[in-house]
Amino acid sequence: MSSNSFGSHITITTYGESHGRSIGVILDGVEAGIPIDLDRVQHELDRRRPGQSSMTTARNESDTVSVESGIFEGRTLGTPIAMIIQNSDQHSSDYRAIADVQRPGHADRGYDEKYGFRDHRGGGRSSGRETAARVAAGAIARQLLERTGITITAYTIEAAGIPCTRIAIDEIEQNSLRAPDNEAASRMEQQVLAAVAQGDSCGGIVECVCEQVPAGLGDPVFKKLDALLSQAVMSIGAVKGIEFGEGFRAARLLGSQNNDTYSEQGWTNHAGGVLGGISTGQPIIFRCAVKPTPSISRTQRTRTASGEVRDIEIHGRHDPCICPRIVPVIEAMAALTILDAWYLQFGRIEP
Amino acid sequence: MSSNSFGSHITITTYGESHGRSIGVILDGVEAGIPIDLDRVQHELDRRRPGQSSMTTARNESDTVSVESGIFEGRTLGTPIAMIIQNSDQHSSDYRAIADVQRPGHADRGYDEKYGFRDHRGGGRSSGRETAARVAAGAIARQLLERTGITITAYTIEAAGIPCTRIAIDEIEQNSLRAPDNEAASRMEQQVLAAVAQGDSCGGIVECVCEQVPAGLGDPVFKKLDALLSQAVMSIGAVKGIEFGEGFRAARLLGSQNNDTYSEQGWTNHAGGVLGGISTGQPIIFRCAVKPTPSISRTQRTRTASGEVRDIEIHGRHDPCICPRIVPVIEAMAALTILDAWYLQFGRIEP
Amino acid sequence: MSSNSFGSHITITTYGESHGRSIGVILDGVEAGIPIDLDRVQHELDRRRPGQSSMTTARNESDTVSVESGIFEGRTLGTPIAMIIQNSDQHSSDYRAIADVQRPGHADRGYDEKYGFRDHRGGGRSSGRETAARVAAGAIARQLLERTGITITAYTIEAAGIPCTRIAIDEIEQNSLRAPDNEAASRMEQQVLAAVAQGDSCGGIVECVCEQVPAGLGDPVFKKLDALLSQAVMSIGAVKGIEFGEGFRAARLLGSQNNDTYSEQGWTNHAGGVLGGISTGQPIIFRCAVKPTPSISRTQRTRTASGEVRDIEIHGRHDPCICPRIVPVIEAMAALTILDAWYLQFGRIEP
Amino acid sequence: MSSNSFGSHITITTYGESHGRSIGVILDGVEAGIPIDLDRVQHELDRRRPGQSSMTTARNESDTVSVESGIFEGRTLGTPIAMIIQNSDQHSSDYRAIADVQRPGHADRGYDEKYGFRDHRGGGRSSGRETAARVAAGAIARQLLERTGITITAYTIEAAGIPCTRIAIDEIEQNSLRAPDNEAASRMEQQVLAAVAQGDSCGGIVECVCEQVPAGLGDPVFKKLDALLSQAVMSIGAVKGIEFGEGFRAARLLGSQNNDTYSEQGWTNHAGGVLGGISTGQPIIFRCAVKPTPSISRTQRTRTASGEVRDIEIHGRHDPCICPRIVPVIEAMAALTILDAWYLQFGRIEP
Repeated sequence: MSSNSFGSHITITTYGESHGRSIGVILDGVEAGIPIDLDRVQHELDRRRPGQSSMTTARNESDTVSVESGIFEGRTLGTPIAMIIQNSDQHSSDYRAIADVQRPGHADRGYDEKYGFRDHRGGGRSSGRETAARVAAGAIARQLLERTGITITAYTIEAAGIPCTRIAIDEIEQNSLRAPDNEAASRMEQQVLAAVAQGDSCGGIVECVCEQVPAGLGDPVFKKLDALLSQAVMSIGAVKGIEFGEGFRAARLLGSQNNDTYSEQGWTNHAGGVLGGISTGQPIIFRCAVKPTPSISRTQRTRTASGEVRDIEIHGRHDPCICPRIVPVIEAMAALTILDAWYLQFGRIEP
Repeated sequence: MSSNSFGSHITITTYGESHGRSIGVILDGVEAGIPIDLDRVQHELDRRRPGQSSMTTARNESDTVSVESGIFEGRTLGTPIAMIIQNSDQHSSDYRAIADVQRPGHADRGYDEKYGFRDHRGGGRSSGRETAARVAAGAIARQLLERTGITITAYTIEAAGIPCTRIAIDEIEQNSLRAPDNEAASRMEQQVLAAVAQGDSCGGIVECVCEQVPAGLGDPVFKKLDALLSQAVMSIGAVKGIEFGEGFRAARLLGSQNNDTYSEQGWTNHAGGVLGGISTGQPIIFRCAVKPTPSISRTQRTRTASGEVRDIEIHGRHDPCICPRIVPVIEAMAALTILDAWYLQFGRIEP
Repeated sequence: MSSNSFGSHITITTYGESHGRSIGVILDGVEAGIPIDLDRVQHELDRRRPGQSSMTTARNESDTVSVESGIFEGRTLGTPIAMIIQNSDQHSSDYRAIADVQRPGHADRGYDEKYGFRDHRGGGRSSGRETAARVAAGAIARQLLERTGITITAYTIEAAGIPCTRIAIDEIEQNSLRAPDNEAASRMEQQVLAAVAQGDSCGGIVECVCEQVPAGLGDPVFKKLDALLSQAVMSIGAVKGIEFGEGFRAARLLGSQNNDTYSEQGWTNHAGGVLGGISTGQPIIFRCAVKPTPSISRTQRTRTASGEVRDIEIHGRHDPCICPRIVPVIEAMAALTILDAWYLQFGRIEP
Repeated sequence: MSSNSFGSHITITTYGESHGRSIGVILDGVEAGIPIDLDRVQHELDRRRPGQSSMTTARNESDTVSVESGIFEGRTLGTPIAMIIQNSDQHSSDYRAIADVQRPGHADRGYDEKYGFRDHRGGGRSSGRETAARVAAGAIARQLLERTGITITAYTIEAAGIPCTRIAIDEIEQNSLRAPDNEAASRMEQQVLAAVAQGDSCGGIVECVCEQVPAGLGDPVFKKLDALLSQAVMSIGAVKGIEFGEGFRAARLLGSQNNDTYSEQGWTNHAGGVLGGISTGQPIIFRCAVKPTPSISRTQRTRTASGEVRDIEIHGRHDPCICPRIVPVIEAMAALTILDAWYLQFGRIEP
């Protein structure tokens, strides 16, 4: 399958350079007759779009989605759902000065070797802008999943080294970090702004919880549910690690500590809702390491494609911390992966 | 694609329950005319096979591989390479007593929900035994990769909470943990044996280094090289997390610390050899969290498929720490993934 | 893979209902740096578009293609190439009267059973309009193939029962049937118009010749080149049969007559350029049976989705004979299939 | 997906050279708990195996199938079902004399160009022997389909130019041609034996009827049911053409003649049970052109891989007419394709 497609039964295929005409997605495999609320698709895009707060780039994209096919009179047709988002505020000239430079922390080096020819205007396919297409498709996947009762919630559990001290789901959309702890978020924001003042950027950790996933989703061996979620989430440019349940901490536990046991209160959930690649019926919980934004205005030493050493300062419009905008992207990828597993298991939404 | 297949251009399809007649693999997509040393395939299986040391289960399987097709007069035919490993020492009766019990830390719960009917003899497809087929295929992939100069080396970097303090590659095969630090390995072994004496088990962290991978492997968006490696490695039952380069540590670094910069000494490698999903030409480095073996002899509280609460002690033959035997499996999955990316990029081994 | 995608290395994914907002295609897998002439893409669409002659429907679609991504400064980027064609002249009201009726010869019956809910305006995904997206992608595939020397030419070899008596390639675009024999075409046209006068329609046979295909394309067993071409061409709605070389005639030949033998003049080509699923280096020749247009104005007896018997006369705008417009579609599907086989074999256009 | 795999939800992956150690298949995607009668699997293999009559090669293979996995206590486990057939009577020396010669009508030319290196002993993967693996998998698919009521029956409708004059299903297994007309079969056999006496071989046409297929199977655009059946059947080496319903005859009919209309007696079935790629609920009927066996003892002029002109007489053991042995292969491929479409539509056997 092509490198711009994802999924088995439910597939998405995306296109678009960050500074081209438009970006978009074809979502295929959804059954017919399911009502879709397009306002909620736009709402998810608004959560991901730039220009929301001090934590996000000032690039001004309305990210208005146009549904070209697959939905008729408010319901799915069972045919591919194509969605298009125009690129409007491109500022391509920001990039002209650095067209030949391999930006530190960016994919430029690999692209130069791989393609020999690249759209230097903002990263092309390696730009975070590509993820808007995923969010549009994921917003439909989430509406389908809701019919089954499944909900997916991601949030910034740590940023700039500052962890949340509690998980208050209703606070997530109340602060600029999308953290479930307004007070911690306030300290995160200060810390990030301090870094920005130095021309720098910060990373963080995003946690995702998928609730009401029935036991039995996922498949043995190569399509383990956690393996597919890992591919899904690690395919987001800024993510450098993923762990489920106890995750890396499990490496230091004894079997008797890490195993999930049963009591009157039910099963413990050290495994994070997946055992042997198959959902257990408990919440699926994973965490992702989000690297600090690579585009920074501090001087960095790098080289050009032709090998010349250069100092570079990147003065475009960039997020000081990617966490709050990556939250809806992770939710989208989790929703698409779980919906795919659902269809593989049950064949339709209401089995 | 079926859940027992992996890869795009180079694919493997595996079969076999842990206590069935045989297990095996079909490796497809390899070009014709490449010499293959079958002794080295057997050697990799010997590295994974049970009964090697105090760290591994006493199940006695010779794991002798039989090549059924695809290799003729010592060279590949370009046709599918089928390899079969007979199951011999099955001790299925070990499992009869617990046929109906959902073993803590095992996939039994999900399997019961998913299939309603399972081969209770040792986990069926969720058994670690399934990975022998991957190792056989990976052993051929490694020989192909070597023709390009690429080498892949994994090792236990931490076990039972004890980290290595140095990386001495030539010590890896000298100790029972496959740790690149004989001294640390000795302390790991003591710690694991102490846990075993309590009827318990230990986990650890395995690191994998892929060297001489040229820049430009991997594809943008969903087939990012690190995303595919994550699927590959997370599809191994005991792995609960993966991180590349700085990994979760990157979440706490500033952009200026985490970005790779260029100097006379070349590029730094905080990224772990992959940026934007495409190899940079530097070593690819990732780490995996390996959970403690779930089968332990300590009493655990669990339930049966029909809902009855039960205490269980598991007295079969099980690895006290999975790390040393998972090392060749991780190498195999990394080799298959990188070989696939190589073929997608270059179309043949010697481009 | 989704049912709206085709291909392995080179893939297309299409979307769009015949009376929706737009139709389009994402072409993925093309390497970077290849010059593309977009005028020639439009030219191929113009060959397929309605309103060309007395043989084609009067629906007036300009079918202007917009390239949204993947081509930058006239060359491919190696990223997905998205192309969009707006639907303009929809006349959806033509269909309102027959919304509930299962039109004879159309997919309505299967759609009603499969989806329970369909876009009644002109067939949705089963409309021939969907093939415009294939032609756009095929037009790029053909430009890539030309760099290898491969050419693909299809033509109407028979229509309304009247066969061509000669193959004059330069006459194909000179007549309304796209037949390589202007004189036969003239008789075909008369015969078709006579049928139209009776409220009826005609079918025919289209032949396709792929020249300069090197020996060795295609793969054994399930990806035989003729098997994939068969899927490609049989996936066009109006095609009911396909044969290669001697085709059905081979069933009546002796082995000594049908086998290709070698002499000073080279090999004979009864096989049609494919043996054992692999190209022989000779021209690949296949023929397709094209059924008469199902939409006719004569009264036909049918039923509604709810089971009521109804007489129906279909007075929309429809091709009296599909052959001339299916020619570029068959060329497109052949080009995409052969390009895919080329990439699987050689990895890049200029090996 | 690899070239030795077929299917989306239900997949088969086959391996094995005709003169290697064994051939086999992994059937993946079947749900758990379905009873399978292994005797009936062997029975289908017996129908395909050599040495049955004067119409089949004298190669003596018992073709005994060994089920290695996926079936436990007589029921499917939901895990991959691996089946192995040993090669026993290989007579490889028959081929030594012609190792370098490109046999007329065989795939040798393409293989030489594609691989540069081939197993000269009997065609390797291009041998008809490969189809035994398909029959084994198909025999299980048929048992699954039977639970839904679907039956699949193929037969020789014409051989050596002699057509059947009636369709008597119960006569199919009563004659050496698998023709549904004992009297016609007797004349076919005489005609074939007369050709054999001249060192020659004959072809024929096989028809396949799939009954009780519900309306709604198959998918629009590229996964049309007839397109997938075409790939499935055209992937059998000896098949050179396929047509559905009226097939090539439709090219000469008027729309009013070819369209299926509804009356008290139900729908007519000119379409052969598929419209717009989706089953109509009527019998699916297709016909395949089977070429005359290419291996004949008459002198033929050919060349070697290195370009030397040679006369060749092929004296191995070969079928004088492939039709009777291809019948179970076509049934198997049809069963696998329809089962796959069933699962894509319904998700499980008993929806």
